[in-house]
Amino acid sequence: MKKVIIYDSTLRDGAQAQGISFSVEDKIRLVKKLDKLGVDYIEAGNPGSNPKDLEFFERIKNTSLKNAKVIAFGSTRRVNISVEEDANVKSLLKADTPAVAIFGKSWDFHVTEILKTTLDENLKMIYDTVSFFKSRNKEVVFDAEHFFDGYKANPEYAIKTLKAACDAGADCICLCDTNGGSFPNEVFEITQRVVNEFKVDIGIHCHNDTGMAVANSIMAVQAGAKQVQGTLNGFGERSGNANLCTIIPNLQLKLGYSCIPGENMKNLTAIARYASEVANVLHDERAPYVGKNSFAHKAGMHADAVHKNTTAYEHIDPELVGNQRVFLMSEVAGRSAVLNMINQIDNTITKDSPETKLIIEKLKEMEYKGYQYEGAESSFELIIRKILGKYKSFFELCEFKVVVNEPSVTTANSSAMIKIKVGDQEEITADEGDGPVNALDKALRKALVKFYPEIMEMKLTDYKVRVLDSKAATASKVRVLIESTDSEEVWTTIGVSTDIIEASWYALVDSIEYKLLKHRELQE
Amino acid sequence: MKKVIIYDSTLRDGAQAQGISFSVEDKIRLVKKLDKLGVDYIEAGNPGSNPKDLEFFERIKNTSLKNAKVIAFGSTRRVNISVEEDANVKSLLKADTPAVAIFGKSWDFHVTEILKTTLDENLKMIYDTVSFFKSRNKEVVFDAEHFFDGYKANPEYAIKTLKAACDAGADCICLCDTNGGSFPNEVFEITQRVVNEFKVDIGIHCHNDTGMAVANSIMAVQAGAKQVQGTLNGFGERSGNANLCTIIPNLQLKLGYSCIPGENMKNLTAIARYASEVANVLHDERAPYVGKNSFAHKAGMHADAVHKNTTAYEHIDPELVGNQRVFLMSEVAGRSAVLNMINQIDNTITKDSPETKLIIEKLKEMEYKGYQYEGAESSFELIIRKILGKYKSFFELCEFKVVVNEPSVTTANSSAMIKIKVGDQEEITADEGDGPVNALDKALRKALVKFYPEIMEMKLTDYKVRVLDSKAATASKVRVLIESTDSEEVWTTIGVSTDIIEASWYALVDSIEYKLLKHRELQE
Repeated sequence: MKKVIIYDSTLRDGAQAQGISFSVEDKIRLVKKLDKLGVDYIEAGNPGSNPKDLEFFERIKNTSLKNAKVIAFGSTRRVNISVEEDANVKSLLKADTPAVAIFGKSWDFHVTEILKTTLDENLKMIYDTVSFFKSRNKEVVFDAEHFFDGYKANPEYAIKTLKAACDAGADCICLCDTNGGSFPNEVFEITQRVVNEFKVDIGIHCHNDTGMAVANSIMAVQAGAKQVQGTLNGFGERSGNANLCTIIPNLQLKLGYSCIPGENMKNLTAIARYASEVANVLHDERAPYVGKNSFAHKAGMHADAVHKNTTAYEHIDPELVGNQRVFLMSEVAGRSAVLNMINQIDNTITKDSPETKLIIEKLKEMEYKGYQYEGAESSFELIIRKILGKYKSFFELCEFKVVVNEPSVTTANSSAMIKIKVGDQEEITADEGDGPVNALDKALRKALVKFYPEIMEMKLTDYKVRVLDSKAATASKVRVLIESTDSEEVWTTIGVSTDIIEASWYALVDSIEYKLLKHRELQE
Repeated sequence: MKKVIIYDSTLRDGAQAQGISFSVEDKIRLVKKLDKLGVDYIEAGNPGSNPKDLEFFERIKNTSLKNAKVIAFGSTRRVNISVEEDANVKSLLKADTPAVAIFGKSWDFHVTEILKTTLDENLKMIYDTVSFFKSRNKEVVFDAEHFFDGYKANPEYAIKTLKAACDAGADCICLCDTNGGSFPNEVFEITQRVVNEFKVDIGIHCHNDTGMAVANSIMAVQAGAKQVQGTLNGFGERSGNANLCTIIPNLQLKLGYSCIPGENMKNLTAIARYASEVANVLHDERAPYVGKNSFAHKAGMHADAVHKNTTAYEHIDPELVGNQRVFLMSEVAGRSAVLNMINQIDNTITKDSPETKLIIEKLKEMEYKGYQYEGAESSFELIIRKILGKYKSFFELCEFKVVVNEPSVTTANSSAMIKIKVGDQEEITADEGDGPVNALDKALRKALVKFYPEIMEMKLTDYKVRVLDSKAATASKVRVLIESTDSEEVWTTIGVSTDIIEASWYALVDSIEYKLLKHRELQE
């Protein structure tokens, strides 16, 4: 099997998408997931343009990865200064990664009209920057920005920019369709010419502005490209980047290339969903391979035929990518994924154990109510523990009351009173906050800390709200996700209700119970 | 310019999508829109499998269309019966359309394993059905189901099925990638062979299971296909059909084919959004050409470059398809777009009027607070009106208090008390609801209806919550969007606060004020 190098840019180019912004914590978690999936490179930030990325690179240095190399991304040096003086270049060095990606202009129009410099100076900028990093023993990928548009406008000059990078010792040259306007046949022909002309590995980086980023990437590989750049779920600016969740199975399951270790392919759907959760965007349920609808058959002819023979209306077996066949209006959920989670808590349980059946029934019941445990595994773990008898209740809610007053200039317009019981002891207290959920959160912790001082170690780090079935307007169900951390672990819990306070309450209680359970088990 | 025939199947194959179901009324409205856009064929239903489609065909007969032919879709006759006796064939005739699409099997495996008949009988089924409709003076498109998979398994037989349709007089033969698993190079090569072998027009019908339906369709056209089948927004089963909203501009704006009248291209974004509305699905804002994000540039380098020259990071001018350029988070945000909105209220204002400056300053201030008026233009209209002096206050809030109790089995766990003033009259009332926002919403309407009975005409139809900067956890800012309607118009308003009740309150008040302003202006 021919190897294709998978270069993920979810954390860098993916973060250019409208509405997506990753925290340092988000990035660390995604790096670990991507490494586990088995991608080869993780382009994780642009330290020159985003100073907060330096904190990330500082932290990631101490994280050991199995498969992937972390790569920092930055521009060639600026016009008419020396590489050593360039602030971006310095930031890139400071990121201290084993590899760097340097982007430079391949389109003459961009050189003269945007950079406002000469074509020669641009070639020098490429040469200088790449050779600088090679002299510092970095692996260097050269991203030829706007290569295809540049090649169509002035092929000779576009090729010269690649040559400058090659001469400077670049390890890989990546052809970028930055504006995303290219067509598959063009990408094939142009890539083929470059592959024939250069000895170094050629990469491809596509955008989806004509809806063909996946096809363009595939055609480039068929023309001889060895590296594919893209993002999970195609996250990216405008219409997005090439979607690795489509490209990887296309290449590996259908064309016989090797992209990631074969045994990891079944984790693809889970990681795609996880990335959507972390990015806080609705997962695209129509997405090839990894959407909930991708193997959904409507009642009638197609469904009947699929019952007779699954290949009748399915291009692959959905289990290969960890997805599942759905006959709409029927409920068949992923038993093996659930069993996997159960076994992490009790490995004596099998798929035929009565507990498994109870847990799956509970899962269906909760999903029906609007719960969705992908991305909120800690809440699901609590359900499993309850059914397996591996759960302990830490407190009982007697009563709470939240009062919200009309908007005012003072910050705390909400107050919460709470009464709980721990064993035989009752505790009643109150607090105020920015809105009702914040007030309730603060009051609950205040009531509990006397019994469980360890909750001081935890803090809430993320709060997400999604309206389900929003057509019911202000009476709609909402799903709340709360992410918490205690500096050792990050966990996410969920609550669903038509009342946002109630939904937040459920997620809050799960989060605290999860922490207390973990603490107790460590003590034992 | 070479003509490509556009064959829309939104109402037939598009309706196979999970969650999409069109009423007869929806279908009529979409047919009119599609006809106005200038597509050539509208495949509008399968009268054999869906009896309610007959009502639609009855009604559409009396609707005069400018460009499009309505086409009914159905299967070849069943195994071992005569065409005349076949119930599907009878329903197709009854639909009484100028053209029909007949689908038949081209994959030997489907013939023997799913239809359970002989390869010869299948050829007869195709021949008999096509010639029957030709003898009734119908235009006939033959849809060769699973053609590409069939060709790869048994090319000789797949070609024979096309020949049977041709011999029977089919006007067009459409090659279907029914399972959506084909690759662009395969589609190109196989289509090219068919185009060379047959004199009749060749069509292409792709599904998106490998994320390449658009590219496959384009490659088929480049190989000589004359007709492209697809759906608006790529609606369809599993990962969807080929997206005509991408294919049409790809072919017409970039490859020089003619698909629809040139002057209609600017309506593409509007019709795409309209189709999402009618289908009641979230519009895909990342969709090429027609998504809100398709021409959105994040602050920094790209945005700067686009300001210098729009072609720097844009593959086409967004206005060509009726879309618009957006600079995200930059306060350079479209002065001309703002002026455009101002002029809808007062057309004497120019870009140099002091009011324009005030409005843009206010816009910046609000955006800084987390407001985002794209999609909430009614709230922005209220701001413009306030600054232009074209606003009237309808009521004053004296006080509200919302009380939320702990989760219970009873439905209404929240109650709201509200006191307002209209002119000199005070009104105090209360109501309860599903959660605090619902309770407040109900109480406010109850207090107002006595003064403004017209608020009975409006209802809230959508409620969305988005957490901004969710890292502040339960003290995060939230953005609430409320959509309302009064059967004549739909409007959306926005509120932002760290307190979800307060954010909802702002959006609610805007929504009601917008309605009352409109009502007053109609009366005057």
